[in-house]
This record gives sequence, structure tokens and C-alpha cells, in this order.
Amino acid sequence: MSQNKLSFSSDYMEGCHPKILERLMETNLDQTPGYGLDPYSDSARSLIRKACGAPDAEIWFLVGGTQVNAVVIDTMLRPWQGVIAPHTGHISTHEAGAIEYGGHKVLPLPAEEGKIRASQIQEYIDDFHNDLNRDHMVMPGMVYISQPTEYGTLYSLDELEAISKVCHDRHVHLYLDGARLAYALACPENTADLEDLARCCDAFYIGGTKCGALFGEALVFPRPGIVPGFFSMMKQHGALLAKGRITGLQFETLFKDGLYKEAGETAIRAAARIRQALIHNGYNLCVNSPTNQIFIDLNQNQYERLSDLVEMSFWENRIVDDEIHTVVRLAASWATKDEDVDQLISLLEG
Amino acid sequence: MSQNKLSFSSDYMEGCHPKILERLMETNLDQTPGYGLDPYSDSARSLIRKACGAPDAEIWFLVGGTQVNAVVIDTMLRPWQGVIAPHTGHISTHEAGAIEYGGHKVLPLPAEEGKIRASQIQEYIDDFHNDLNRDHMVMPGMVYISQPTEYGTLYSLDELEAISKVCHDRHVHLYLDGARLAYALACPENTADLEDLARCCDAFYIGGTKCGALFGEALVFPRPGIVPGFFSMMKQHGALLAKGRITGLQFETLFKDGLYKEAGETAIRAAARIRQALIHNGYNLCVNSPTNQIFIDLNQNQYERLSDLVEMSFWENRIVDDEIHTVVRLAASWATKDEDVDQLISLLEG
Amino acid sequence: MSQNKLSFSSDYMEGCHPKILERLMETNLDQTPGYGLDPYSDSARSLIRKACGAPDAEIWFLVGGTQVNAVVIDTMLRPWQGVIAPHTGHISTHEAGAIEYGGHKVLPLPAEEGKIRASQIQEYIDDFHNDLNRDHMVMPGMVYISQPTEYGTLYSLDELEAISKVCHDRHVHLYLDGARLAYALACPENTADLEDLARCCDAFYIGGTKCGALFGEALVFPRPGIVPGFFSMMKQHGALLAKGRITGLQFETLFKDGLYKEAGETAIRAAARIRQALIHNGYNLCVNSPTNQIFIDLNQNQYERLSDLVEMSFWENRIVDDEIHTVVRLAASWATKDEDVDQLISLLEG
Amino acid sequence: MSQNKLSFSSDYMEGCHPKILERLMETNLDQTPGYGLDPYSDSARSLIRKACGAPDAEIWFLVGGTQVNAVVIDTMLRPWQGVIAPHTGHISTHEAGAIEYGGHKVLPLPAEEGKIRASQIQEYIDDFHNDLNRDHMVMPGMVYISQPTEYGTLYSLDELEAISKVCHDRHVHLYLDGARLAYALACPENTADLEDLARCCDAFYIGGTKCGALFGEALVFPRPGIVPGFFSMMKQHGALLAKGRITGLQFETLFKDGLYKEAGETAIRAAARIRQALIHNGYNLCVNSPTNQIFIDLNQNQYERLSDLVEMSFWENRIVDDEIHTVVRLAASWATKDEDVDQLISLLEG
Repeated sequence: MSQNKLSFSSDYMEGCHPKILERLMETNLDQTPGYGLDPYSDSARSLIRKACGAPDAEIWFLVGGTQVNAVVIDTMLRPWQGVIAPHTGHISTHEAGAIEYGGHKVLPLPAEEGKIRASQIQEYIDDFHNDLNRDHMVMPGMVYISQPTEYGTLYSLDELEAISKVCHDRHVHLYLDGARLAYALACPENTADLEDLARCCDAFYIGGTKCGALFGEALVFPRPGIVPGFFSMMKQHGALLAKGRITGLQFETLFKDGLYKEAGETAIRAAARIRQALIHNGYNLCVNSPTNQIFIDLNQNQYERLSDLVEMSFWENRIVDDEIHTVVRLAASWATKDEDVDQLISLLEG
Repeated sequence: MSQNKLSFSSDYMEGCHPKILERLMETNLDQTPGYGLDPYSDSARSLIRKACGAPDAEIWFLVGGTQVNAVVIDTMLRPWQGVIAPHTGHISTHEAGAIEYGGHKVLPLPAEEGKIRASQIQEYIDDFHNDLNRDHMVMPGMVYISQPTEYGTLYSLDELEAISKVCHDRHVHLYLDGARLAYALACPENTADLEDLARCCDAFYIGGTKCGALFGEALVFPRPGIVPGFFSMMKQHGALLAKGRITGLQFETLFKDGLYKEAGETAIRAAARIRQALIHNGYNLCVNSPTNQIFIDLNQNQYERLSDLVEMSFWENRIVDDEIHTVVRLAASWATKDEDVDQLISLLEG
Repeated sequence: MSQNKLSFSSDYMEGCHPKILERLMETNLDQTPGYGLDPYSDSARSLIRKACGAPDAEIWFLVGGTQVNAVVIDTMLRPWQGVIAPHTGHISTHEAGAIEYGGHKVLPLPAEEGKIRASQIQEYIDDFHNDLNRDHMVMPGMVYISQPTEYGTLYSLDELEAISKVCHDRHVHLYLDGARLAYALACPENTADLEDLARCCDAFYIGGTKCGALFGEALVFPRPGIVPGFFSMMKQHGALLAKGRITGLQFETLFKDGLYKEAGETAIRAAARIRQALIHNGYNLCVNSPTNQIFIDLNQNQYERLSDLVEMSFWENRIVDDEIHTVVRLAASWATKDEDVDQLISLLEG
Repeated sequence: MSQNKLSFSSDYMEGCHPKILERLMETNLDQTPGYGLDPYSDSARSLIRKACGAPDAEIWFLVGGTQVNAVVIDTMLRPWQGVIAPHTGHISTHEAGAIEYGGHKVLPLPAEEGKIRASQIQEYIDDFHNDLNRDHMVMPGMVYISQPTEYGTLYSLDELEAISKVCHDRHVHLYLDGARLAYALACPENTADLEDLARCCDAFYIGGTKCGALFGEALVFPRPGIVPGFFSMMKQHGALLAKGRITGLQFETLFKDGLYKEAGETAIRAAARIRQALIHNGYNLCVNSPTNQIFIDLNQNQYERLSDLVEMSFWENRIVDDEIHTVVRLAASWATKDEDVDQLISLLEG
């Protein structure tokens, strides 16, 4: 990686919010029990329950997003069930078959800008139950969505409530992947807060890895008792950290004094400025994302110019009017510096 | 957990060696690629290759021991194969079925003080191949041992070489779990160094979590090319850290300037002093462990007295001469303070 | 099921070809070893090897199609690999997640009338290998097709050779599901015989259950040695019949004196007559199937009339010009009687 | 296999009871729905419910024993649970890891002559729940036993009731493998009839393959509703026969007019005569089996003599007084002919 070039290629390029390192230093030689039974984890759980308005929520700390997805889905589904997901969802595409490794089929629905609609879900589930061959097919037992989606888009509260209603009327779990949740919560366009997620979902996770932590995700079951055996399932999946305190401490720090939201706001502000500058300079934003990820459809000249200025993520090639276009992603994060955004904007205008 | 009582209950009660936190601070805002492709991970790999005398070794960083065991065993075995292990081995007892979750049977051999012998392994494998029903049985495809064992005992170099020979003559992989490897390497009784492990084993891991790191294990395949698809298997098992730099950096720190061995020596010195004091005061050490774990067989009076003085791990109850005895474990670690050992010794003598 | 109504609802409504029952009677009290090591199975293997022009082929007898698919795919794929299949393929839709139960993802390609093309496969595999994120994705390790397809259509020899070339150039296995293979082999339009399948595929199975046997499928690996551990994998999947002789004997009977092809021809002749009568009477055949399955797109009136005359399989509803149409399937088989076809034709004309 | 030598090597060397073939002939061209929805299967279910005194029992027909074991255990256990079994149980030893393939650990208890005791089971389960590390261990969720056992021994009704009580008091399922159940039910020493099994067990299967059928096992869940999703689980495991009528018809035949018991009695009578002749001629019966299997401990001379006279199953070698002894098994079956028994007895005496 070049040291001299600006990089907006992803939101997990840095370590963690400095306040987390401070707390690790302060507590380093404290002796605590392992496996999440320590006081920092307890304190983090209290803070998250409060933020979610869910005083009885069951909360677990895991290491990474694919891991959370695999353990939750494998634990909540019965062996004859599968999980409905957007065809662009992380579990559909980029988890190397982690869900299938657990024995479950991902049932993809065509997504638009990363999102699926309540009506699609309803139709899929009802079609399944009306199919004479349904016992030869995989029963949908859960719906997986992410907020923000892999394309940076958001489900509105209305959309989320509609999906929740479809699921619960049909006894299907709703699970929400919040790997980048800080960037939804901090976004002015967002209408679904943590309390809404706790009300609408049977399980969701609050992402740490991409939102200011060294690593770690906080899994929330808003209504306790829904998942017997979860601790053992974490162990069985290799997802139980011996020094659980380290994840607990990070979430305690993120949920004290509003740090989690603050981390999100830094990224949202930076992304908004970059977005404006891109539009101003004639770039074509190709997804209507209001969060920390910016997708740009570039023609050959634009691609060459922009990729000289800044590290980005390649997304895909497209053919537009017989010409190859390249879609790239710029990502801002909790760590994005104002001066780097300034520099990018001046380069764009240069 | 009482703040006022000495605790020797385990070797993962503290955070990490202060030098690791220092390095995390220094590098926190560096931007690096994810998934272990960063310069700290590369540097750690070089240092470990050198320490193992294995310049071509393939090295991966994972988060925890159960996770490493599950990914390695699932990747190296074919689906019709199982793994031979001591009946007291970690994969046999305390991984909540992680190996079976991957579809493989653990084939337990009776262990003494945590160890199995080359002759037992040979007999098991040869019996399998001589059995007329072998195609209806699970084929042994790997041997799993740990160093030190769950009972703190050590395989001598001779024992290790004998096991290695049995395995390789029969085309069976040898895999060594080094969750507490620092405490073997630092032990005066130890005769098998990292170069020996690299020569004898097809895979082994160098434990970080219990040996001075916040978390993390370094998996070594001394001879590259033995495991195609390993990166994807890590992802599939939820074992791939987005910010791989954090594990890389910890191992870089541990393997620079001998810190890993130094961490081990602290524990070994402490354990030796405690052991001597226990014997001096009439306690009955019930496993011949030379490393950081001390197992004591206590009668009722002793148990009451000792458990008032110090936090220990309960191991098991035994009936000795019609009386209930309790076996407990004391564990020293890289973080054990001389003053705590002094205090324990004076309490023992008090 | 009404005894008075003609039934063409499927090709597994009867027992088996009478010659098979005869042979079961003749040999019933012979004593033989179990698990396929009996002389009937050996004889069946010889006959199939000869029919396939593959003198070294490895041949196994299993009980049913889903079972064969699951064992073959699980054995031939490495754990990080998935299987490309038409989105309408049996493994994609109607096996209740049997492939995912084995830990593998089905990678669906859009099919036309049940078929996928070599160019689609090539593009999918090449895109995978060109994707920067490929290590986070499921690697295609096999292509699954069926002959005839679930829609009764056939791959021509040219199409099959093209697919075979794409697969083998990319080190991907080609596996063909021949649940209804007799109806392909007996079809005048068919251009790929058993020798071609043996040349083009790495594995394929010759269906018995739907082609005249009580049950049973003959799996062919044309080139031996490709699948170590297969016997144990059959046992592990519950697919090993104790009295393997019963499957062996059935295939011996089917492959002696051309009975397998004869069974197919009965169905093909019947289907051709029915097809002609349907067209003659103004019905709309909606798939270009030359084999034993006939798909008809019926408007409301037609559906009411035809479903009064004959038992059929419901396939799907469609909206055509704002009207609900029903697609149904008629299936002929080795057991279809001329008089039933006569009766159906006269009813159609009535 | 020699045609000239008597064979008592196993109980699945012949086809099936002639009455079954007769019924297959009579019904061969009847048209029925598939997948066990046919009238023969319905009729068989009624007969079995009646025989078990369980009018609401849920009954499924599967193909073979390993298959039943795998589907039942995988369906009834939650993913974090394992199954307790005798260390000599079929699932512990000779199913090539079928249970582990489903993700579950087999938890072996030391067995005597194939049997485990209620007190052992109670101790194991209670120890688990008292273990501080239980959440890191595999929770026992089911007990697996067989009747008769792999050694031909029987659980008495008292023993069975005691095991049932231990299981149900602890919310653990009891599952009984009846691969050879006809030979228990027909045995004068047997005290547990089908009604007892239905009362004591949560699931059990009535073996067909070894008891007079071509193949097939009838699985009984005495209390319905205990296993949602079972049909789909059969399909997912490749255990659903398209022409389910063939298994249904066999069990209808076996349970009409007492044929199942009659089949068992033939074997029991033959075994009793052989046993008596062996004892009379100085052979050492080494297991106290009253059913169709006879285990003999042979010294070198005896082994040479007996293996010249008759085909037997090799069981194991033992060292007795520094001499190698060979344990062999003779098995009688529903198909054993009186004249073969006569001939064997006269050879023994010769």
C-alpha cells in the first residue's frame, strides 16, 4: 500500500478509536473471569440494553460479522430450514459458504441497491407454503437483511416494520446484520433507531469492527429465551473469546458518552462532503446511498484520473453504450481525517 | 471475582503484555489492507519462520484455539476421516463438539497425564487397516496432541519424533496444539524447540491468547502447499479477521527480541516457586507437570484452607480411602507478579 | 387416487418391469455377501462397463437420485467448493437442501427449458477466478446437469462436449444426473449415447427408479481412482444397502438383452402419440421436450376439461394476457399401456 | 462364496420372505402416489400402530438402519447436543461417522455384552449438568440403545423402564435401534414387547432388512408431534424412497397374520438348536446371547475345524493363557433351513 496516496478503499484500514486503546491500557492488568463473564462485558450489556430500550435483551459479543451470521443462523434455524436474503447480501456472496457449511441454504431474492421488499418476502414465503412439493424444498425460516446494506442504502422504518410484520405473521425470524450500523444511526436520512431495531427484529448485531473497534460485534436478542444453547453454539463455532473482556470493554467504551454515534457521524460528514464534490465535478454516483459508502460509475478517462488520485475499491465492470465503465467504491469511516477529505476534494477539482 | 483474594485460577485473566499495547498505540492510525495482508502480519510471519527454521512455512493468524483446531482439522481431513486424540485432549472434551460440527469424529485414545504414546497410535492405525470392516469405520487421518498438554506435561523430543515417524509412515497428519506453547519452550525440562516442532509436525500453532497476547494464535504449516483453500476455509469458518493486522502486530511483538520466551519464563519461574512451597507445606502434587499449571490433590481440610487463601480452578473430585479429595489447578502466567507469588508462599506457610 | 381415471401424473407410479420380479423370485434364496460384493452386482457392473465402452469404470449402486447426488457432490468437492447447476436443476430446487446439508453451496445459473450452456459456465468460472474477492466466495468445483433435464429436454452431443471441454480446461468436475436416462437413450432426437457420457463426464448415474426398476441408480465413474473413500462415504450418508444384491440384480436385468432401452422406447412411443394428439386437438405444448415428459400450457377451459379426463402433475400457474394459465405435465413411462394411450387419445378427441 | 459350504455368516444373505415377493407380484402394476402416500404404506402403518398399542403413532419407512439412525438423531437433537451410546453400539463403531457427518458427537459409555445400565446413563447426565464447564461440552440430548444389541443380548423390561425413567426425568430422548427386533420379540427370554417399546421410547425402529424384508425399516414415534419437519429431513438425507409403496408393502405383509414374529421364531429355534450342539461338543459360548446371534470363543484347533465346516463371521482375536483365541459369530435368520441346521449339527458331532 502506497504511503503517499490518499486511501478511501475501505472502513477497516485503521486500528480503533483512541479512547478504546486508552481503556485497554487502564484495565490491562485487572484480573477478570473469561468468556464474557467479566464486569466490562456486563457493563457493556447494560449500556446496550438501555440504548435499545430492551431491558431484558440477551447480548453476546463475537469477533466478526461472518462469524455472527453463521452462529445466529445455524442456531435459530431448524435443520430443514433456510434463510431468505437479498441476492447481494453478504451471506449470499462473500462468506465463502459459511451458511452452507452450517447445513443451511441461502434463499436469494432479487435485490435493488441491496434491499428487498416486504412484498417479495411475503410472496416467497406464501408460494412456498402453497407449493404441493414444499416438503421437498427448503423451508424459509429466517429473513436476513443488513442496515445499511452492502450498497450503503437504508431501510426506512416503514419498510422495516412491513418486513417485520410479514415475518412474524408467518413465524419466520427476522435478523439484521449491522456490520456498519453506526453509519446508519448517524445518517440524517435514517428513520430506524436502535429501539426500532429491537422492536422489529428477533436478532440483530451492532457492528464494531467497521465502526471504531479493533474488532468485535455485539449481538442483540431483544426478547430473551429465544435461543437456548447459544453459549455452547458460540464455542462449537470457535466464536467464543477466552478474554471476552476485550470485546466487552470496547463496546462499553463505544456506548458510553455516545461514542458509537460520534464515530458514525465523522464518516457521514466526510462522505457527504466527498459526494458533493464528486457531483460538482461531474461524476456519476450510481447508488442512492446516504451513508459512508459512495459508489461511482466511471468511464475509462474518469477511472484513470480518479485511480491516480486515490485508493478505492473496485466493484464491477459494466458495459454502458458499448464502452467499459468501472464501478468503484469510496468509503469514509470513523477514522477519516478532515484534512484527507480536504485534499481529496481539491484533487477532484484540480 | 473478589478483588482482595489472590487469584491463580487461569492464565487468561489479564489483558496482554504491555509492549503489545504500546505497539497498538504507535500504529493505530496507520492504514493497512485487511485480512492479514498487512506489513505487520508479514513481518510476524518472517520472524516466526526464522524461529522455526522453516523458511518456506505457511503461516496464518487466527483468533482462538478452538477455532484453529476446527479449521485445521476440517481442512486437512477428507470427509471420511477422523482425528486421533488423547481422551483428555481439548478437542475431545471442551470444544462443545466443534470437530463433529465439521463432520469429523474424534477418535479418543486413553491418555496418561494428558499424553498418548507412539505405540498406542501405531496400534490404533494398524488395527484399523487390518479390520475387515474398516470401510464401515472412520479412517484415522490425523493425530492431535498438545504441548504442553491439558495437564501441563510435556512430550520429550524422543516421544515427539516417535509419534511423527508412526504418523508419516502411515500417511497420517500430525497436528500439535500449542495453546500454551510459551510455557513449554521456557521450561528447563523441555527438549523439543520450535525447530523440532516444525520438523516433526504437519501443522502446529503457537498460542498467543494464554501466552501474553490479547488474543490470537499463529498457525504454522512448516511445509507449504499441504493445504489448498485454507484462506477460504478460514472465511467459511468465520475465522478470518478483517483487521488481521491486530493479530499480526501482536505476534510481531512477541517474536521480536525474545518476548514470547520471556513471557513463558515469568510463568515457569513463578510456578516453580509455588510448587516448591506446596511440597514444603505437605501438599500432594498429583500430576508431574513441569510447566505453568500445578495440579494438587487436596483432602477436605486442605481444600478448605487453600480455597480460603487463593482463587484456583476446580478440576475434579476423587474418592481416596473413602474420603472425598478435590483436585485443583493453580496456573501461573506471563502476568504473574513476584509479589503475588511471595504472598501466596507466605500464606501457605502461615 | 381414483381407480377409474387414467393417470399420467408421473413415471414412478408402478412397481417394476416384470422381468425384474422374475429374477428376484429365481434368486431369492441364494446366499450372497452383502454391500454390493455379490455376483449379481458384479455382473451388472460388467454389463454397464460394456455398454459405456469404459472397461475400467468404477460403478456403485445406490438407492435413489437425491442420495446419489448428495454422496457424489459431497465426495468430489473439497469443502470450500460449490456446484454449478441450472436454477431449475433438481439439486437447486427439490432436494430439501441435501447438498447444503453436506456443506456445499449450489451455484445456480439461469436455465432455459432446464438447460445451461457451455458459454454460461465458462463465464461463471472465469468471472470467479478474475474476481479480486474470490477467496471470500465459493469456488466452483463441479458442474451438475441432467439428461434429460427436469423439463424433458436433451443436451445434444455437441452441447455436452462443449460443456465437458469448458469444465476440464478449468479443472472442474462434470457430473450428469440421469434419473430418466432411459428416456433420453431411447429418444430419436438424442445424439449422446452412453459411450459419449462416459467420455464427457467425470461421473454420471443411470437411473433405475424412474426407468423400470423397483428402485436404484447405477453411478458410473468412467475413470477409476477419481474418488478415494467412496464406499465409506456411501456408508456415512446412509446410502449403502446391506443386501446390495437387490440393486445389482435389477441393473443386471435391465442391461441384459437391451431391456433398459426397451423400457425407454415404450415411454417415448407413448409420449409421441400423446403429443401428436394434443397438438391435433389444439393444445399448446410449452416446452420443446422430445422425451417422456409433456408440458402443456392450459387456459381455464382446457384445464377443467383435461383434468376431468386424466390425472396429471400440476407444474405452475402463469398469467397470459391477464388470464390465469396452468402448466401441467403428463408423463409416460416404461409401464404405459397402449390401451391407456388409445383411451386418452380418444378422450382428447371426444 | 463357496456354494458347497454351509453359511451362517450373517442374517442378510438371502432375499426376502416369499410372501413379500408374492405381494410385489400381485400389486406390481397398480398405480399409486409416491413417497409413502400409497395405500400399502397406510395399511402397514395401521397394522404397526395396532401391534404397538399406539393408535396415534407417527410411522415412517426408510431404507436401512444407518440411514434411520442418522435421520432420527439429526432431527431430534439440537445442534449443541450429542447422543449417549454403548461404546460397542452400531453408531459408535460401524456407521463410518454418519452421526458426526450430521454434526453430532457420539458420547460412548462402557458397555457389557452390548448393554449399558440406567445408573451409568444417570451418572453421565448428572455429571454433565454438575460440571462447571458444561457449556464448553456436548450436552447429552438422547440415549441410543439397540434391542437385541450388537452382541445378541436383550434389555429386560425392568432395565428398559429404568433407562426410560432416567431419560425422561432429565428431558433426554430415548431411541432404540431394532435392526434385529424380530429376533428379540420371538425370543422366549424377551420381556419387552412392542407395546412396552412404544411406552418407554421416544422413537424406535422395527428392522426389516435383517428380519425378512428385501430392505426397509419402520420408524415409530409413539407420540406424534415430537418431530416437526421429519419428511423434509428424510428428503434432505437422501432417505425418501420415490416408490415408498415398496417398503410399505413389505411391512404390510410382515405385520399381517403374524409373519414378523414367525420370521423371528424360525431363527430363534435354529439358534437354540445350534447353541445346544455347540455346548454339547465342548465349544465355549462367550456371550450370553439368547437371540439369533451366537458368539463362540475358539482356540486354534477349534477355529481350524469349525471354519472348515461352516462360513462364520470373524469377530476378534483374544489372547487367552498366552494362546490366540478367535471369537466368531454364527447367525441364524428367518431364512435358515432346518436341513442346514441338521447338517451343521451332524458336522459338529462328526
